[in-house]
Amino acid sequence: MEELKQRILNEGQVLSDSILKVDSFLNHQIDPTLMYHIGQEFARRFAGEKITKILTVESSGIAVALMTGLALNTPVVFAKKKKATTMDSEVYLGRVYSYTRRESVYIVVAKKYLSSKDRVLIIDDFLATGEAAQGMLQIVEQAGAELVGVGIAIEKAFQKGGKILRKKNIRVETLVEVNNLSSGHIEL
Amino acid sequence: MEELKQRILNEGQVLSDSILKVDSFLNHQIDPTLMYHIGQEFARRFAGEKITKILTVESSGIAVALMTGLALNTPVVFAKKKKATTMDSEVYLGRVYSYTRRESVYIVVAKKYLSSKDRVLIIDDFLATGEAAQGMLQIVEQAGAELVGVGIAIEKAFQKGGKILRKKNIRVETLVEVNNLSSGHIEL
Repeated sequence: MEELKQRILNEGQVLSDSILKVDSFLNHQIDPTLMYHIGQEFARRFAGEKITKILTVESSGIAVALMTGLALNTPVVFAKKKKATTMDSEVYLGRVYSYTRRESVYIVVAKKYLSSKDRVLIIDDFLATGEAAQGMLQIVEQAGAELVGVGIAIEKAFQKGGKILRKKNIRVETLVEVNNLSSGHIEL
Repeated sequence: MEELKQRILNEGQVLSDSILKVDSFLNHQIDPTLMYHIGQEFARRFAGEKITKILTVESSGIAVALMTGLALNTPVVFAKKKKATTMDSEVYLGRVYSYTRRESVYIVVAKKYLSSKDRVLIIDDFLATGEAAQGMLQIVEQAGAELVGVGIAIEKAFQKGGKILRKKNIRVETLVEVNNLSSGHIEL
């Protein structure tokens, strides 16, 4: 997606060989028009899939997921992060390991918002190690819902997340792949 | 706003005399089309105000703010919540007291995304005690930006937040006022 590519190249900041900061348009300041176009693009790619629910995780996935939901006329559910897990029969629970914090957080979705009748599209802003996506997969599985695919705005293709998902025969649609940051420059 | 009123009456759950749960369309599951209409309504009310930036706080303010930003063609900045405050010269800091958790959290915005040249509209999903709004006001003040007003989807008019803001001569635009929950029913 050319528009997103240009924004990444113009505004992205390389903080380390694995960290790309794009908080001027995606995850602190948000450009609503760019998000709208991203939503349109995901809707185009997943057209005809009869998606009934979009799943993302707070906070930075919400903008991308919401605009995809607008384009597909589909409700969006965002999983909420919890530090500790308490037994709760009303929620599905996914575990997400954070490499930066070296701890697991849990993400939860109320059972009433996801069921075995749903056809689910997972949407997120970034795919890197795939931990967040796998936490959401656990939730889709617990619901007995059908996973249509995973839509990612920016995939760090040099990290393992994309490989792990595709090995499971999951359809992963990435709008922009980042191939290398180790030179200090952004290589798409 | 009639559409939002009907959704609250049809789907809202009264959990106590001060807690109204609307997580089927606003803050866990989100209805993107309803959010789009809410954004259009805020844009209509604040038309001509030459807003340059919309400010909200993660997570549940993001959807409403994003659609308002889309309608006004304006970037959205969402303040991030932090448990502890560390000295950081790169951010503005607001303090938000949580009555439910009986502790303060801090909300931060990177200085580069808000300046004295900005005309800011604060948007949030709920206004109750006004703590979140006041934390955002602190951030707008630190930036030396001009506050145009505050747009709220649902105001719990029996709590003090709206009064506090209006006493400061801040323009508060509320789409739906909830006047009473103490009977176990939602009184608008």
